[in-house]
Amino acid sequence: MERTKKVSIRGKSLGTTQPLICTPLVGSDTDQIMSEVAKIRPKEPDMVEWRVDFFKNLGNTTAVIETASKIREALGRIPLLFTIRSEKEGGQPISLTEKEKMQLYAKVCESGNIDLIDCELFHDDEELLWLRQVSKEYDVRLILSYHHFHLTPGYEEILNKLLKAESYGADMAKVAVMPTSTDDVLVLLKATQDAHKQMNIPIITISMGNLGAITRMIGWFFGSSVTFAVGENHSAPGQIPIDDLKTVLKIIQRSAGV
Amino acid sequence: MERTKKVSIRGKSLGTTQPLICTPLVGSDTDQIMSEVAKIRPKEPDMVEWRVDFFKNLGNTTAVIETASKIREALGRIPLLFTIRSEKEGGQPISLTEKEKMQLYAKVCESGNIDLIDCELFHDDEELLWLRQVSKEYDVRLILSYHHFHLTPGYEEILNKLLKAESYGADMAKVAVMPTSTDDVLVLLKATQDAHKQMNIPIITISMGNLGAITRMIGWFFGSSVTFAVGENHSAPGQIPIDDLKTVLKIIQRSAGV
Repeated sequence: MERTKKVSIRGKSLGTTQPLICTPLVGSDTDQIMSEVAKIRPKEPDMVEWRVDFFKNLGNTTAVIETASKIREALGRIPLLFTIRSEKEGGQPISLTEKEKMQLYAKVCESGNIDLIDCELFHDDEELLWLRQVSKEYDVRLILSYHHFHLTPGYEEILNKLLKAESYGADMAKVAVMPTSTDDVLVLLKATQDAHKQMNIPIITISMGNLGAITRMIGWFFGSSVTFAVGENHSAPGQIPIDDLKTVLKIIQRSAGV
Repeated sequence: MERTKKVSIRGKSLGTTQPLICTPLVGSDTDQIMSEVAKIRPKEPDMVEWRVDFFKNLGNTTAVIETASKIREALGRIPLLFTIRSEKEGGQPISLTEKEKMQLYAKVCESGNIDLIDCELFHDDEELLWLRQVSKEYDVRLILSYHHFHLTPGYEEILNKLLKAESYGADMAKVAVMPTSTDDVLVLLKATQDAHKQMNIPIITISMGNLGAITRMIGWFFGSSVTFAVGENHSAPGQIPIDDLKTVLKIIQRSAGV
């Protein structure tokens, strides 16, 4: 459980024995999103993820940046993660081309309103390396991620996805997959543990759905740095309410003596 | 998570998705024990284990049976497990020979005050088969167990201990071992899951200490039927308070949709 690879964002450390709790924003317009923010803030998440693929005005860069600015202001010092989740990895259908998506990430990084971005690993080398360069230029942390909403790949493949993210210079590597058995849940935990030992960046791993829900509570014990919980609305299957998650984490951490 | 091998004791079912919570009694005399029982009852454990190796009057069969009778009466319908844990498997030093221990088990079975006994697998064939016969005669359930307080054996060895218990006709098989790494915790969970799939009796598995404490909360998810929690005093490292355990179980079960 030792953590040597801390990443600090606005005073929040990733990679300690205390996993950060991240709650998603999934509103389709600015008003909805700001209402979510207002309800989420009192629950004191460690991080907030704006799932921009839910935002109907996604094609209007100015509207996106203005909304990011409002969220930023309302969140105070809570780190803001900006994610355009691809439809093929569980996101909403969007109208942007891959190129336009990259441009939007760059513009939002430039705006200074966000702390982190999440981009899927399936993008080609050129896009990923460019995004790494742009995000670094504006001091925005980059999460490179892999999701599968129907199955859990084998141990080696999970490990390779995490290692691949590190090889592109990501600040964090994320894998979220769907189990079809308790076996799959153990495979995810084993890969988490071994990746955590081998890698030099914090990792985020999730086994989704009802079957994987325990990983949202115990994943940190094997090396996962962030756990996603419902503040107001959930963004993926298996997410549990932030209050429940905090209760469980407190008891598990006391029991584990950390 | 399917459970096909239920064992019912006084209306409590082992082998369902709801693990039974068992709290230990570790008093050294009848008064201490009865005081523990009084404090434990309002916490509504599903089962109570009298750790008789802590009882200083262990050599006096009449005193043991009288105390068992008092505990039985005070517990109402809560199942009572009678355990003389051997010193070499984490119990207290006692004065009884192995033969005297077996005789005491038999006398207590005969007394009708207890529902289950726990005996270690290291005893020789003759003793185990005799104890199986005697306990069956008095309709007392037999747990055959293996403990290691310093390490976690390999996956195969854990599985073999559980299978061995079944081969002797045990009603339940128990393995409690000490992890020295998170790897060991995953090995115990994997063995639990696979034993649960292969075996025809409920199993109880525990990874002890701080490092293993999570298995007391999530072990049921992989097939462990009983989890030990502190009512008044703990009997093994890593046990957590029954109230905390109930809180965590409720949240995990709701999240897992069971």
